[in-house]
Amino acid sequence: MVTENNASHQKSRGAIYVVGIGPGAAEHITPRATSAIAASTVIVGYSTYLELIPALIKDKTVIGTGMTQEVKRCSAALEEAARGQVVSVISSGDPGVYAMAGLVLELIKERAEAGVYPWTNAAARPVVEIIPGVPALAACSAALGAPLMHDFAAISLSDRLTPWELIERRLHAAASSDFVIVIYNPKSKGRPSHINTARDILLNYKSGETPVGIVKGAARVDETITITTISAMLNYEIDMQTTIVIGNSQSFSYGSWIITPRGYRFAAPEKTSQADKD
Amino acid sequence: MVTENNASHQKSRGAIYVVGIGPGAAEHITPRATSAIAASTVIVGYSTYLELIPALIKDKTVIGTGMTQEVKRCSAALEEAARGQVVSVISSGDPGVYAMAGLVLELIKERAEAGVYPWTNAAARPVVEIIPGVPALAACSAALGAPLMHDFAAISLSDRLTPWELIERRLHAAASSDFVIVIYNPKSKGRPSHINTARDILLNYKSGETPVGIVKGAARVDETITITTISAMLNYEIDMQTTIVIGNSQSFSYGSWIITPRGYRFAAPEKTSQADKD
Repeated sequence: MVTENNASHQKSRGAIYVVGIGPGAAEHITPRATSAIAASTVIVGYSTYLELIPALIKDKTVIGTGMTQEVKRCSAALEEAARGQVVSVISSGDPGVYAMAGLVLELIKERAEAGVYPWTNAAARPVVEIIPGVPALAACSAALGAPLMHDFAAISLSDRLTPWELIERRLHAAASSDFVIVIYNPKSKGRPSHINTARDILLNYKSGETPVGIVKGAARVDETITITTISAMLNYEIDMQTTIVIGNSQSFSYGSWIITPRGYRFAAPEKTSQADKD
Repeated sequence: MVTENNASHQKSRGAIYVVGIGPGAAEHITPRATSAIAASTVIVGYSTYLELIPALIKDKTVIGTGMTQEVKRCSAALEEAARGQVVSVISSGDPGVYAMAGLVLELIKERAEAGVYPWTNAAARPVVEIIPGVPALAACSAALGAPLMHDFAAISLSDRLTPWELIERRLHAAASSDFVIVIYNPKSKGRPSHINTARDILLNYKSGETPVGIVKGAARVDETITITTISAMLNYEIDMQTTIVIGNSQSFSYGSWIITPRGYRFAAPEKTSQADKD
């Protein structure tokens, strides 16, 4: 053990931060995300997101912006950290919601199990920290007023990594039990009709008048917000960067807001209320 | 209209910020949340959460900390804003997830429809801004590694404002279609057995070995994290301040982490990947 400890001191121990920078505007990046990026010498991330934080990453080594494959980018991050570098892997939103946290941890496990130093050695291996951020679902919800508020389901329509049948099953399950539904990745070039199919599934259970919020670039300079209904939602522009929020049976629109009531107004007071939990 | 505009200029226009302060630690409070609180003269919130931000709220008028009824607290906030004050209504986590955003907007709508000035007048009424924060589900997920990653459902076990039958339906729906499930408000004095019932529902569809994360006080000094399984989860302390994350069929635990794979490792590269969305 002494030998291992000595070995681990021969070079400085690296770190890998998996950082969520929130929806995009600087004012929604947490101090912890900012300090982790500031402490990093190497930045790994998709260029679309790095472009949101130019001031934070100038003078850093940026790798992988040209890489389109997540595994390659995350592997590069691990290798830099193993060399003693402090590395930030950047996701927009929260790194645990359809983003990079899982892949980074999977790759660490794989290296440790394959006997790759320093991942095998608890004392020497890089520090790993997942730094949460404001997820797209929270930023979009804020832009729309208060559409979540109650039980909700997040569903990605991307079938690149998930069988489409399972996605359909989840849409049926969530719509039939009156969840508010947040749809990620609603449309891409390869599968433009998925959102149409999803809408048809929703209409089996939800009224066509159910409010729908369509948000693109929440909290960015080019933010666009549309408030519509399930019946009319396909009349609006929807692409891969769009997040869609579909209300439950109690949701209503009012001016520029969608409001899903929680029912507080009719509740008796109680000593400790779950209104104060989240 | 001129008269109304003149009237609106006779006193300064108030503002009401519905602010999410994240899980509790200062390092996870966004700059926008901090600046909104700094700009406020009046702070409204449940004392448990105000105690997390003593430095931000000193020298402010704090109202409603003794109030246990959400409607009274939010009504007080509206009245102060109508008088021209800048008011922050504080929620922990995100204000749109089981928190105060919906109620504030509902009360504004009610006043406007009842003809109460200045809510009737678009030019004079207080500025309203919902300021997102890092929700408990993201903070807990980060503390646990990467348990979300894929489609997930958030379900509150509180039946104070929701029929228990609907909560059960949602548990069945989410578990049967292999969502990761985040449980809010798992237990309170009035209903200690709900979590037991919920667990029994989960076991109809999910393996007893499915990883479960139990998080209390995520990102606070007294944070406690337990990684267990559906079979064993009831052996651990669970209360109203606990958030529970239940994996999907692909989730596994590894050391101090729960990882839900997204499957990126087996995917072909593509130009724009949804790994970079959120």
